[in-house]
Amino acid sequence: MLKGRHLLDPTDFSPGELDEIFDFADLIIQSPAQFNHLCDSSILATLFYEPSTRTRFSFEAAMLRLGGSVVGFSEPTSSSVAKGESVADTIRTVACYADIIVMRHPKEGAPRIASQYSPVPVINAGDGGHLHPTQTLTDLLTIRSVKHQLTGLTIGCCGDLKFGRTVHSLIKAASRYPDNRFVLISPKELRVPDYVTADLTAKGIAYQEVERLDEVIGDLDILYMTRVQKERFFNEDDYVRLKDVYILNAEKMRLARKDMIVMHPLPRVGEIAYDVDSDPRAYYFKQAKFGMFVRMALISKLLGAS
Amino acid sequence: MLKGRHLLDPTDFSPGELDEIFDFADLIIQSPAQFNHLCDSSILATLFYEPSTRTRFSFEAAMLRLGGSVVGFSEPTSSSVAKGESVADTIRTVACYADIIVMRHPKEGAPRIASQYSPVPVINAGDGGHLHPTQTLTDLLTIRSVKHQLTGLTIGCCGDLKFGRTVHSLIKAASRYPDNRFVLISPKELRVPDYVTADLTAKGIAYQEVERLDEVIGDLDILYMTRVQKERFFNEDDYVRLKDVYILNAEKMRLARKDMIVMHPLPRVGEIAYDVDSDPRAYYFKQAKFGMFVRMALISKLLGAS
Amino acid sequence: MLKGRHLLDPTDFSPGELDEIFDFADLIIQSPAQFNHLCDSSILATLFYEPSTRTRFSFEAAMLRLGGSVVGFSEPTSSSVAKGESVADTIRTVACYADIIVMRHPKEGAPRIASQYSPVPVINAGDGGHLHPTQTLTDLLTIRSVKHQLTGLTIGCCGDLKFGRTVHSLIKAASRYPDNRFVLISPKELRVPDYVTADLTAKGIAYQEVERLDEVIGDLDILYMTRVQKERFFNEDDYVRLKDVYILNAEKMRLARKDMIVMHPLPRVGEIAYDVDSDPRAYYFKQAKFGMFVRMALISKLLGAS
Repeated sequence: MLKGRHLLDPTDFSPGELDEIFDFADLIIQSPAQFNHLCDSSILATLFYEPSTRTRFSFEAAMLRLGGSVVGFSEPTSSSVAKGESVADTIRTVACYADIIVMRHPKEGAPRIASQYSPVPVINAGDGGHLHPTQTLTDLLTIRSVKHQLTGLTIGCCGDLKFGRTVHSLIKAASRYPDNRFVLISPKELRVPDYVTADLTAKGIAYQEVERLDEVIGDLDILYMTRVQKERFFNEDDYVRLKDVYILNAEKMRLARKDMIVMHPLPRVGEIAYDVDSDPRAYYFKQAKFGMFVRMALISKLLGAS
Repeated sequence: MLKGRHLLDPTDFSPGELDEIFDFADLIIQSPAQFNHLCDSSILATLFYEPSTRTRFSFEAAMLRLGGSVVGFSEPTSSSVAKGESVADTIRTVACYADIIVMRHPKEGAPRIASQYSPVPVINAGDGGHLHPTQTLTDLLTIRSVKHQLTGLTIGCCGDLKFGRTVHSLIKAASRYPDNRFVLISPKELRVPDYVTADLTAKGIAYQEVERLDEVIGDLDILYMTRVQKERFFNEDDYVRLKDVYILNAEKMRLARKDMIVMHPLPRVGEIAYDVDSDPRAYYFKQAKFGMFVRMALISKLLGAS
Repeated sequence: MLKGRHLLDPTDFSPGELDEIFDFADLIIQSPAQFNHLCDSSILATLFYEPSTRTRFSFEAAMLRLGGSVVGFSEPTSSSVAKGESVADTIRTVACYADIIVMRHPKEGAPRIASQYSPVPVINAGDGGHLHPTQTLTDLLTIRSVKHQLTGLTIGCCGDLKFGRTVHSLIKAASRYPDNRFVLISPKELRVPDYVTADLTAKGIAYQEVERLDEVIGDLDILYMTRVQKERFFNEDDYVRLKDVYILNAEKMRLARKDMIVMHPLPRVGEIAYDVDSDPRAYYFKQAKFGMFVRMALISKLLGAS
């Protein structure tokens, strides 16, 4: 039963509950017009205390395509925060106006606090460098749609694996399905944190850490590229030195399998060359579309509309 | 006849006209889904030259729950103001696109000027420290809904009574109903302006000014708490010294009547302790919900939709 | 066939195609309620990398009055641009969520790049000082509606003719219809660029350049006034010296024909005195309304909804 639930962490929902969402997303993908009025007269509030056009648009388009409507802010400056109000109070007020709330916040844990005070479902749309569960749902739905399964896959994650929360969440989420293995491709300075590998070891899940993309790309079912996020670096020099190390291009794509797919949470800033865009294995823009569909399914389920 | 009217001052409408709005709000509260399409195809413009998430959300949710839609801005920087346009010209242009306009402006009187040029209804959503009539309508509807009357009440107003426009408007509006009396609780530095008490005296309405909340809380039907607004103070020291003087907490609530209700225009920044939130007499979040319903009724009436 | 097309330059569409849009706009003007659901379930994305309340409201109201909905941003600060994303990537992502995209951008050519990557129609809502085609469509529809023709007119353009892109576009667009002539009224410093007059000469179209409005106003069918845009000037002194030179007022209006109409793209900042507003020949606010209707027609046609 997903009605009335919050989504704060990518593993808040069981694999069975995720299947319920993904199955419904599949229905929507097959005939979106059928669901144009599913959430008529419902209101989504988008509280973005940190700007993110992409994520906000995806949620808003999802709600609008279900017939619902949206109130929101896209930057903290125009919010009551300036008047010193607590998240708890803001959320209880917004819940007077809206039926479901999406929150992005620079502080880890803010959406969890919000959920503790909210009488309506709260979706975490990113809290600092911490969690971004709907990105993980997007990733899983994309893989499931293309590979027709979430098991037995070799998943490569490439780039900034230290600060990239989407990768941490994807590894955690994909670890719940049997027989997946992970290939972690990054410079030593940007390896996944120890707790991630410790968790994989504890669960007996196979993984390897490598430094060169070209040596392993041929083994992969999924190549998940990540942006080198300038804002996560402590100094400019490190950023400049490392940002271009792991660039995927048409040349490297020649080493990959015919059925490997390239994913990326976007935005990219150079880590995938433009000559990859026309490759049929490039899935990052399709992935953005899956993101809208999975959010349509999620909103419908949390509102109890389906 | 409210169709086509503007709402600039809380007393623009007669008590009879307010009853018409409140009666309609009651109908909406009883079965909101019945009014989901009342204002289909109408557009509300929200012109916020000063940010106010709460008020903006309330108006926008009200319009959306009537089936209408919204265009707007939430900060002046993104408006044509930057190009030196007058309010008169802005409003005549916006009236080409929208059927009803809500304006918040830092300058007193700006909404009145707007109304003089607008062919569509203009609602003042706050002009500087001056007026905020829909807050007063919210307060009156809340009291009417809980107390089943707007007469014969002892209304306590506590906190910053000097700069708090919501209190001035509430006193003025509640003075139009018979047999209400006011208890004005504030430090000497933040008493209501002289014109407020002079007006009460002239009308023969009972009031008392006191300095301690605990001494009078037992007499009250309504306790209207107000935020100590930092932005109204001339210096930081005065703010720090006074802001925590009049804090309502569970201990003081023990002195109050069983049927007293606590109201607050929100946001609060400490003047009501969190331990009051679970008290059934705490009405400030319900009040926010009444705010949305009264705006639904108001918009419907001004558009002539009901 | 306009379905799926982009609108980047005012002359992207042939006069015949423009007639198709204007004819449809006429139908909408006659009975707007009939088209309230024409674009139900479609989403317009408004990407304003440069703020413009007026233009954004006009597009959003147009889409809402067709039953569609809107996602968007009104300033670049809240966009993914801050993360270093290219226009090409932004547009491919936004096209996952929206069915049609409106873009205003400070850089010339940005909307054209967007269109090259977009699977959905892109409308240029202004790129720097370059083009603003829907303003031109607005101007043409206004003239056509009032004069019942787009031929044989004497069109006066007054003010800043050097930097005013709306005038350049209007001259170019009106030049495609037979027997129009242009009277270009400006100080020497702000004359139209040479390429504009060269183009008129090459096409054998009559024009004259004059310095005084009062000497020619009696000859005009249309007087198109323009704002002296402070942001186009290189220094403050020039702006102050020139901005008030060509002010239209009631006195000058007495010299004009009874059927001349005054147009202005708005906002004005003094170049039309307020005493002109009540003159029945003042069409600048009606023009804004035509702007919404022509955008309704344009969106409908590009979406293939009509």
